[in-house]
Amino acid sequence: MRPPTPSPSSSSSSMGAFRLPALSHLLSPSKSLLSSPLSFPLRLRPPCLKSTVLIYGAAASRGISAQSLAKEDISPLAAPTADRKPSSRYEGSVTPRSADFNAWYLDVISSAELADYGPVRGTMVIRPYGYAIWESIQDYLNVKFKETGHSNMYFPQFIPYSFIEKEASHVEGFSPELALVTIGGGKELEEKLVVRPTSETIVNHMFTQWIQSYRDLPLMVNQWANVTRWEMRTKPFVRTLEFLWQEGHTAHATPEEAEKEALQMIDVYKKFAYEQAAIPVIAGKKSKAETFAGATRTYTIEAMMGDKKALQAGTSHNLGQNFSRAFGTQFTDENGQSQHVWQTSWAVSTRFVGGIIMTHGDDAGLMLPPRIAPIQVVIVPIWKTADDKSGVMDAVSSLREVLHKAGIKVKVDDSEQKTPGWKFNFWEMKGVPLRIEVGPRDVSNRTVVVCRRDIPGKPGKEFGISMEPSVLIAHVNSRLEDIQASLLQKATSFRDSNIVDVNSYEELKEAIAQGKWARGPWSASDTEELKVKEETGATIRCFPFEQPQGKMKCFMTGNPADEVAIFAKSY
Amino acid sequence: MRPPTPSPSSSSSSMGAFRLPALSHLLSPSKSLLSSPLSFPLRLRPPCLKSTVLIYGAAASRGISAQSLAKEDISPLAAPTADRKPSSRYEGSVTPRSADFNAWYLDVISSAELADYGPVRGTMVIRPYGYAIWESIQDYLNVKFKETGHSNMYFPQFIPYSFIEKEASHVEGFSPELALVTIGGGKELEEKLVVRPTSETIVNHMFTQWIQSYRDLPLMVNQWANVTRWEMRTKPFVRTLEFLWQEGHTAHATPEEAEKEALQMIDVYKKFAYEQAAIPVIAGKKSKAETFAGATRTYTIEAMMGDKKALQAGTSHNLGQNFSRAFGTQFTDENGQSQHVWQTSWAVSTRFVGGIIMTHGDDAGLMLPPRIAPIQVVIVPIWKTADDKSGVMDAVSSLREVLHKAGIKVKVDDSEQKTPGWKFNFWEMKGVPLRIEVGPRDVSNRTVVVCRRDIPGKPGKEFGISMEPSVLIAHVNSRLEDIQASLLQKATSFRDSNIVDVNSYEELKEAIAQGKWARGPWSASDTEELKVKEETGATIRCFPFEQPQGKMKCFMTGNPADEVAIFAKSY
Repeated sequence: MRPPTPSPSSSSSSMGAFRLPALSHLLSPSKSLLSSPLSFPLRLRPPCLKSTVLIYGAAASRGISAQSLAKEDISPLAAPTADRKPSSRYEGSVTPRSADFNAWYLDVISSAELADYGPVRGTMVIRPYGYAIWESIQDYLNVKFKETGHSNMYFPQFIPYSFIEKEASHVEGFSPELALVTIGGGKELEEKLVVRPTSETIVNHMFTQWIQSYRDLPLMVNQWANVTRWEMRTKPFVRTLEFLWQEGHTAHATPEEAEKEALQMIDVYKKFAYEQAAIPVIAGKKSKAETFAGATRTYTIEAMMGDKKALQAGTSHNLGQNFSRAFGTQFTDENGQSQHVWQTSWAVSTRFVGGIIMTHGDDAGLMLPPRIAPIQVVIVPIWKTADDKSGVMDAVSSLREVLHKAGIKVKVDDSEQKTPGWKFNFWEMKGVPLRIEVGPRDVSNRTVVVCRRDIPGKPGKEFGISMEPSVLIAHVNSRLEDIQASLLQKATSFRDSNIVDVNSYEELKEAIAQGKWARGPWSASDTEELKVKEETGATIRCFPFEQPQGKMKCFMTGNPADEVAIFAKSY
Repeated sequence: MRPPTPSPSSSSSSMGAFRLPALSHLLSPSKSLLSSPLSFPLRLRPPCLKSTVLIYGAAASRGISAQSLAKEDISPLAAPTADRKPSSRYEGSVTPRSADFNAWYLDVISSAELADYGPVRGTMVIRPYGYAIWESIQDYLNVKFKETGHSNMYFPQFIPYSFIEKEASHVEGFSPELALVTIGGGKELEEKLVVRPTSETIVNHMFTQWIQSYRDLPLMVNQWANVTRWEMRTKPFVRTLEFLWQEGHTAHATPEEAEKEALQMIDVYKKFAYEQAAIPVIAGKKSKAETFAGATRTYTIEAMMGDKKALQAGTSHNLGQNFSRAFGTQFTDENGQSQHVWQTSWAVSTRFVGGIIMTHGDDAGLMLPPRIAPIQVVIVPIWKTADDKSGVMDAVSSLREVLHKAGIKVKVDDSEQKTPGWKFNFWEMKGVPLRIEVGPRDVSNRTVVVCRRDIPGKPGKEFGISMEPSVLIAHVNSRLEDIQASLLQKATSFRDSNIVDVNSYEELKEAIAQGKWARGPWSASDTEELKVKEETGATIRCFPFEQPQGKMKCFMTGNPADEVAIFAKSY
């Protein structure tokens, strides 16, 4: 539930590409809020920001390069009107991913209008297009949580400071990054209130009141909420001062049930990552050093980003009896004996949106897996004359209706301020999986052109696809499935070609120096784990559930090892 | 968006029924947080709380009186097992509504497990059954918001203190009830951060960056979020220190568009109230004194609770250019002129759940309109012998499947710790609209018994309803519709019989003294409005949209009046 603190070396490498904000006046309201001596680690590109403002589904899109017009060999322009001439200015673009991964990431977030910076240092405004991705994540997980027996509810976000101090490792992990309310209704409070960084403490305070007997167990709840952690180094979606998440909390009568629950939920996350987000995460167990503050065992899904750094994308904790002992959460078992409950907690946050961006995006911008894309198909009408326009718009309007009724998320970009070529680039940058082009000749032929986002240029284009509803729907659905599978396949190949099996510390150092993940037998101590971190910047991401067979020797100590661990630099 | 501050007299009357918590040890963690000299205005009934703990859909229900067994003439008991004998203790009950409305309200919230008290004064834990009602509200409104062109997004909850000061009436309205973060990451902050009480200020800060041209308008967004107001007198759902809501924010190019939007959204709320919540709200305009801090005009829906007090259940504000002038939110119009945008904001909160409870509930507890009920039908199996049990449970299980597939929210209560009579009372207290009873004779006859929550005893029972799926589904759907319509009808009659048309101040005083609403022609001053409030405890709830025809004279001054106003005491 708690992203590991970045190691000095890994964070310095991730900070390397950060730039200072270009327009300081935009930041002036927050300057006085800078309580840390660190420079503002977020990068604004205000000219781009200013020029590509677009609210999802509401205002017209602007500011997209026309450079692909020639490339795409599309000549017709939207009919210009007197006061709405298509601008020929080159207004917005995205740094190529291959040139600078971090700059690319921030450009995509700005240009695709996923998020913006809040006025307070390290906070983020999630804009409609970014929020719609989060809604896709919510829609899927919310159903799965209910199917697995959990109910939604809501705990207050203000927690008495004394609660945080009750569980020893919890307070150690969280106290440095708390936001505290000290004034309420104009008066100094007698006890400071913590703005929740996570809710185990207040959950246990309530569970203690609700649980008496074994008949009250299992108690399985979830909440969708905001949480606050006073992070010094922030990055949109990946690590922000306030973020959105779900946090599941359960209490059980036996350690076996709690363990089964913790494993079940990491599996729900893993399935979501593979099947919806097309991210081939590696699921496994955290090392002791990387375990959640207060947990007995932490399970994780680790994703490889496009720069090969690891992203912890979801965690599930077996809390044992740590919180139930601290808060006296007990039940009477079937024999009348009083026992402490066994607990779990598990969470996925808006960080996952960052993972999706950094897994699939390319030089042209965002690339969204169809199953989580807010817009799966964008239709771009093409015409030269008013006569052409009416026929094309009629066809487009009926196509939209057909696809919408078939449950496909479709948008028509019929704005007249932009050329078709601009729109092509714009919606590619926004990561829409499929584009349908409809011109006058298509209307005569009762066909459309279908273009895949994931295959650039001519090879991704199919001409002469019939407009006949059943044919078109089948074709679009089939292509969306192809893209979904292809993104997962591509990400899996990328991942597998960047994991190196190592049998010595030297091999590990070499793999990490190349920016790759290193996998090798490990049974060394916490001290040696820390040494690897200090010397290479890599941490143990997990001991994967999938383990090789046979006897192994720890690559560090030569002692027998039961498991391989994966080491990597991480966000 | 801001519930009006209760007048001294209305709040003292609402406080009259509050009792002190019975078990102070439950409150001890929050004692040090009491920053106000007022007594804790929430009432805990810990023995009841302890004995009726039930997590929706997870644990077994307990603690319900068996008193109706004889009344209902049901003799078969669930087969007792050695260690799970049905308890005969009378464990939980609800103060009759007719005896003490406030005690009843708090009992229902506790016994039906809608909410509990958080450890910090005035905060509330929304439990699964209560949260499911909020989810019903969200599901409906979220679709309507999108249909009317709004996109969801998320703004940070921390707002620089200086923002709040920018709009003069806004700061005046909100500064007394702010929660302030002064420490972050272990350091004193240079500028205090406000935990959002509402988001107009931060929204305008962002809108100013996103809006340049008339092409960026309208900008129409919504967020589902938590908000914090340091209220001194709290009451679960109705007024809590932290609550959940949605807040819509829009910007337009003309005052006409903003006005149209504000009216459209109050209409969305009104339709929700009538069609889903079966609450016959009166929609209208607020008086100047009751207008939102920062708005030009506030529209409201006002609901009459079972004790005849008014509840402001939703508001929609025309903000004019108040915030856009304060934050410099300007656009270039079609003529190249710079103009400030025209704005609206509108909100519905978890307070609405309180409105549902207080509109429909009766002496037996909660009564939920079918369209927002988390459980629409509860099936209670009845048997004596093991032989009977297997046949009954087979039938029940297939009935559940049939109803579930038909989209009906159905629950089977097959726990063996309780008698059927207990279950009847328990699910009545939880407000489930329909109960289906299945006994061995029913199984032989291939029929069931169907009982309506809204018609007590025999008149609400129908025997011999066929189990045949198509017949049963049609019957259940038809009864659910009947109940939905009947609840609205009943609430409308109650409302109309408690609104008195008045033509003098004396008549108003008499109506208010009787606890009723007074409606009369009004064109008097703010001072005279304040006088009414001070002398009677009633405020102008609204100038209803529906107005009588013809010339009228203000009942206070005798001057010509264009409109009637409704006066009432309120929550």
